[in-house]
Amino acid sequence: MPIATLDVRSRNRQEFIPMTSELQRAVETNGWMEGALLVFNPHTTAGLTINEGADPDVKRDMLVALSRLIPERGDYHHAEGNSDAHLKASLMGSSVTLPVVNGRLKLGTWQAIYFCEFDGPRSRQVQLTFLQADSSR
Amino acid sequence: MPIATLDVRSRNRQEFIPMTSELQRAVETNGWMEGALLVFNPHTTAGLTINEGADPDVKRDMLVALSRLIPERGDYHHAEGNSDAHLKASLMGSSVTLPVVNGRLKLGTWQAIYFCEFDGPRSRQVQLTFLQADSSR
Amino acid sequence: MPIATLDVRSRNRQEFIPMTSELQRAVETNGWMEGALLVFNPHTTAGLTINEGADPDVKRDMLVALSRLIPERGDYHHAEGNSDAHLKASLMGSSVTLPVVNGRLKLGTWQAIYFCEFDGPRSRQVQLTFLQADSSR
Repeated sequence: MPIATLDVRSRNRQEFIPMTSELQRAVETNGWMEGALLVFNPHTTAGLTINEGADPDVKRDMLVALSRLIPERGDYHHAEGNSDAHLKASLMGSSVTLPVVNGRLKLGTWQAIYFCEFDGPRSRQVQLTFLQADSSR
Repeated sequence: MPIATLDVRSRNRQEFIPMTSELQRAVETNGWMEGALLVFNPHTTAGLTINEGADPDVKRDMLVALSRLIPERGDYHHAEGNSDAHLKASLMGSSVTLPVVNGRLKLGTWQAIYFCEFDGPRSRQVQLTFLQADSSR
Repeated sequence: MPIATLDVRSRNRQEFIPMTSELQRAVETNGWMEGALLVFNPHTTAGLTINEGADPDVKRDMLVALSRLIPERGDYHHAEGNSDAHLKASLMGSSVTLPVVNGRLKLGTWQAIYFCEFDGPRSRQVQLTFLQADSSR
């Protein structure tokens, strides 16, 4: 099947949650071999990004700098009080697309895939779609 | 045919224009069933994003906060006076990729797809490419 | 083969390097005809974006405005001193996906594809994956 879902649980209002090993496992479980994995986030106050996975200070620095740019409180009209989370979600993006070669996510040495929570804690879910590489040659 | 186009007309300099129902209609018209829809924006002062579609204050707040970060006037060299629009376009991104299951865009409950105009009003067009999901199993 | 790589060499700490003609050449060399080209950046202090290619002032203005938003020096914890580069990389994004029609990248008139270096000079490499368009009809 080309479609699957993956659950994510956030524990703080803002948090970058690593998903790389769960995604690699999903690729193996589903027998996806050659192509690209579309990871799609169906929530409007969360995003997805790829960045360094080795030093946790990187995600800390990214979240602090993002929140300095887009404060939680400001001249917002949206009554739910999470307008900052909506904009941060769009800045990170709603999906990542990852090359898969011989059943392995083809990431760089330092890369990790992060679920970007901006209005947690919440139970979240991402959708996985496997796209076929061209096999005509 | 895996390719189609869709026209968009903006009425203001900056505007988030919802495209969800037009995109769903294009999926149906073209008989696209299982895979992913690549929506690609060929313009350099506009972008595409996915965010909340229910409360119009969300897109208002996003545009106001973006323009506070990247003002229209500033220390820019580009003579056309729309450097802010170019950067905003890259921050939102030039494409969105959407899962399609059984002929339906598989969006989250609150998600809408927006054409992000940053230098209108203009006549714009987006390109649609349908990518096949893996059907090997 | 649906997979290839392309080398990029940056000469400055921050730089937008045009890759459009190299990418078009790779599409031709590999005989990719109808679908989408996923260009994936495996580095965590660089990104990819699409923006105007005609006036070099556009990329200059984008880099200056980005660095005003996210200064190189700040309240960062990451010891390598390149936290700004990590955030800029995520703001631009780790990949671009480009429609390919009849063996040609289907870009807008003014669009160029840029490798966004934020922590150079370095030797970099991007990964190309060709995704098949739906050919069921």
